[in-house]
Amino acid sequence: MINVQFAALPERWDTYAVPLRTAFDQAGIDVDLRIDHVPETVDYVIYAPNGPLSDFTPYTRCKAVLSLWAGVEKIVGNASLTMPLCRMVDPGLTAGMVEWVTGHVLRYHLDIDHSILNQDRWEPWAQPLAMERPVSILGLGALGAACARALSQLGFPVTGWSRSPKVIDGVICRHGEEGLQQALTDAEIVVLLLPDTQATENTLNAQSLARLAKGARVINPGRGPLIDDDALLDALNSGHIAHATLDVFRIEPLPLDHPYWAHPNVTVTPHIAAETHAITSAQVVAENIRRGESAEPYLHLVDRTLGY
Amino acid sequence: MINVQFAALPERWDTYAVPLRTAFDQAGIDVDLRIDHVPETVDYVIYAPNGPLSDFTPYTRCKAVLSLWAGVEKIVGNASLTMPLCRMVDPGLTAGMVEWVTGHVLRYHLDIDHSILNQDRWEPWAQPLAMERPVSILGLGALGAACARALSQLGFPVTGWSRSPKVIDGVICRHGEEGLQQALTDAEIVVLLLPDTQATENTLNAQSLARLAKGARVINPGRGPLIDDDALLDALNSGHIAHATLDVFRIEPLPLDHPYWAHPNVTVTPHIAAETHAITSAQVVAENIRRGESAEPYLHLVDRTLGY
Repeated sequence: MINVQFAALPERWDTYAVPLRTAFDQAGIDVDLRIDHVPETVDYVIYAPNGPLSDFTPYTRCKAVLSLWAGVEKIVGNASLTMPLCRMVDPGLTAGMVEWVTGHVLRYHLDIDHSILNQDRWEPWAQPLAMERPVSILGLGALGAACARALSQLGFPVTGWSRSPKVIDGVICRHGEEGLQQALTDAEIVVLLLPDTQATENTLNAQSLARLAKGARVINPGRGPLIDDDALLDALNSGHIAHATLDVFRIEPLPLDHPYWAHPNVTVTPHIAAETHAITSAQVVAENIRRGESAEPYLHLVDRTLGY
Repeated sequence: MINVQFAALPERWDTYAVPLRTAFDQAGIDVDLRIDHVPETVDYVIYAPNGPLSDFTPYTRCKAVLSLWAGVEKIVGNASLTMPLCRMVDPGLTAGMVEWVTGHVLRYHLDIDHSILNQDRWEPWAQPLAMERPVSILGLGALGAACARALSQLGFPVTGWSRSPKVIDGVICRHGEEGLQQALTDAEIVVLLLPDTQATENTLNAQSLARLAKGARVINPGRGPLIDDDALLDALNSGHIAHATLDVFRIEPLPLDHPYWAHPNVTVTPHIAAETHAITSAQVVAENIRRGESAEPYLHLVDRTLGY
């Protein structure tokens, strides 16, 4: 019997208990899944931010902490977390992110806001093709790579950027500091899908915003600290950036007095771009427990130095 | 020397003259391209609606009429047009249509209008995945098939319908009258990409609208007469249809007093979903003239009985 503690917010138990038990059965592992194991008896912790667990010291037998979320910035620096930590790479979350990013890129490309908001004139315009609209994706992890592929298939010239070199069919992949400047230069739409680490904070700042094409649009479904908010507001007010769609913020919910709310060229969405899906992510958790029990390498093991 | 008359609106000459001459050179055919050949000397006519040409009787030597447009409903019934007629299937137009249809399907799927119009509250919602959102495409010609493929690749369960049986990877293909009813049943988003013929008029009428899922959305980038406008307005007013995005109309520009303009649940776009692109369509015209001169079968020859 493997003791697994579900250490997310209690209201998530109703969503996850059945999918997790089903996934454990399918993986052929015999699990006692509870919200309230005695810490010293726990073999694996299933973790989500804002849950009850912040001190891992008593979890002396715990073999791994398995996050239900892709972003682990709230836990990766926890000094009491000495066991392996795995991120979630959930096929359902990836699909949702591809849909959200593709939808907002096409919304900007087709100027759908204009059609929705200026519903009073028959004034045709010459619509450029996607092949004429350079898109850059910062971050080529599971989410960024999937979005890059989908946009490339729709005909957009896609440049992707990541810390380390990557190869993705149909996508120009850049890396390193010089690669970042190349990826930003003349991009008309930029999508932020970097992890939240010290190195990625304020990736979009006054200097990098200035490299984008005049009238560029910014889409951030990644993490709030990737953007220097004051610099973005300045660039929106000067018109260099035409519009931004922001799904994540340094403080969530976004405070009511934040200037993003009232800005005419900002769309705020309430962190809904993509969510972990219970059935598909439960299968990833079960597979990782099976691997732990068989002494096989974990999927999506976090590099604690890099932070993801 | 092959005499080719450019019989579109004169203002299109500036757009098409250079791409056509370039395409003729690349195809290795020696063409005298003009707006004003003597009709009896013309070998091929390049045609677009609303141009100067309606009587083809004097074009006694003309081997084929090559439309720059996909829809040929304004010319197919012309009794003086006795020579072969070819439609345009332009890769640029197909790409534009895929982008426009995918953008508006994702706009509905993600409820982007809500994010644009209700910019005042942090109220997250559970976003379903594309795999939970059935989409139906009526019409599986070059445009409909390409849209069906793109939406299927994004994860939508896509059902397509066409007059005759078709096979498209990843798409449930229906045909015939019974197939139409199956394709409509419970669809949450329906896209109209049928040709404008007597058989397709009012394909979307009170009875077929009733088969769609409650709250369904309608997207028409095809042709105006495909929709019974009164039936659609009734369905919008009753709430059975939640929203419609219409790019084409029985009369264009859409008259200022038409109820679509003021309807809160209708987006009118001014026939911009997809346009023939000069460079790519010029290559199709050149290829068809090359085929005509080599006695090879024309591309996209119109079946005059079917009307497309």
